[in-house]
Amino acid sequence: MYSSPPVLEKLVQELSKLPGIGRKTARRLAFYLISGDREKMESLANSLIEAKDRLIHCTRCYGISESEICQICSNTSRDSASICVVERASDILPFENSGVYKGLYFVLGGVLSPLDGIKPESLHIPELIERIETEKTRELILALGSSPEAESTSLYIDRRLENSPCSRTRLARGIPVGSELEFIDDVTMLRAFEERVRV
Amino acid sequence: MYSSPPVLEKLVQELSKLPGIGRKTARRLAFYLISGDREKMESLANSLIEAKDRLIHCTRCYGISESEICQICSNTSRDSASICVVERASDILPFENSGVYKGLYFVLGGVLSPLDGIKPESLHIPELIERIETEKTRELILALGSSPEAESTSLYIDRRLENSPCSRTRLARGIPVGSELEFIDDVTMLRAFEERVRV
Repeated sequence: MYSSPPVLEKLVQELSKLPGIGRKTARRLAFYLISGDREKMESLANSLIEAKDRLIHCTRCYGISESEICQICSNTSRDSASICVVERASDILPFENSGVYKGLYFVLGGVLSPLDGIKPESLHIPELIERIETEKTRELILALGSSPEAESTSLYIDRRLENSPCSRTRLARGIPVGSELEFIDDVTMLRAFEERVRV
Repeated sequence: MYSSPPVLEKLVQELSKLPGIGRKTARRLAFYLISGDREKMESLANSLIEAKDRLIHCTRCYGISESEICQICSNTSRDSASICVVERASDILPFENSGVYKGLYFVLGGVLSPLDGIKPESLHIPELIERIETEKTRELILALGSSPEAESTSLYIDRRLENSPCSRTRLARGIPVGSELEFIDDVTMLRAFEERVRV
């Protein structure tokens, strides 16, 4: 049985470890990459190493940052009494892109999942609770998605803050703007109907 | 306006240059990559550089190889009197995977396209013709795809060999195995009908 040159096979294997990249796509990428010039390849390889070496977690919000305190946390013009809680660092971008929110963020690093051994201490929940108490946070926006685990994580945090003056909200659920009603799934429709608002 | 850390942005930009990888996928890949450990990242970066440095074109068939003459060309148990002509090096794999072909290959490096300035000399057509004459090749299989450019490239090579004893064939066109007839496009159906064979 024929196999491609080992060096090519290794590259295909490395690429197919990436999420959403199957073997065929990996092969296509590999052929594309080796047909380019060395400079382009080096530039990609260097970006990878540089990103790994220079990006760290912000010690305040656990987002991705080049410095100990990230760009958002260190921006004094933002409302530091408001915290938006997200699951992953990549969830910050859609908020920033919409420009709707001017407070700070907090990256949990996951959602509770007792069956997988993910307890409040495995995430940054104790740090979040402490920060809210210390900083007298006024508003907490729980933006944790709608899986059962995410929902119970939101509920857990809400309960932990039962006696706190900090208000807790979550994002509205409903029909995405620009969607055709016929393509809306049942659960979204149910939520949109239950949470309907006065015109 | 907020932007991600520059190092992260640079990686996203590098990744989104890859074919079929849009900005959103590039961002997802970047977040995945920086969340892994340094070893994994280095392994990918090294594979890229290694592939670029060690892979060359076989001087006989112009396929991808780690040595001057590739694994297939240097395999003496293969039928060297048969040459399968493909457009790109990546087109060799489906033949090898099917195990149906035991001859050698020849990578043209593209197809003729006079409007884009791609003439026979821009491809490896002169080398192919010379090889067929020198080696007294018995059979040439033109496996060049079905775009108008590919078809006229096949015709061009066929005509150049008009007075050669070398037989020229092309792959059969028709209904792919396992396909539902209702999903077959018009041109494929036309070809499959025209080239129908006796049961």
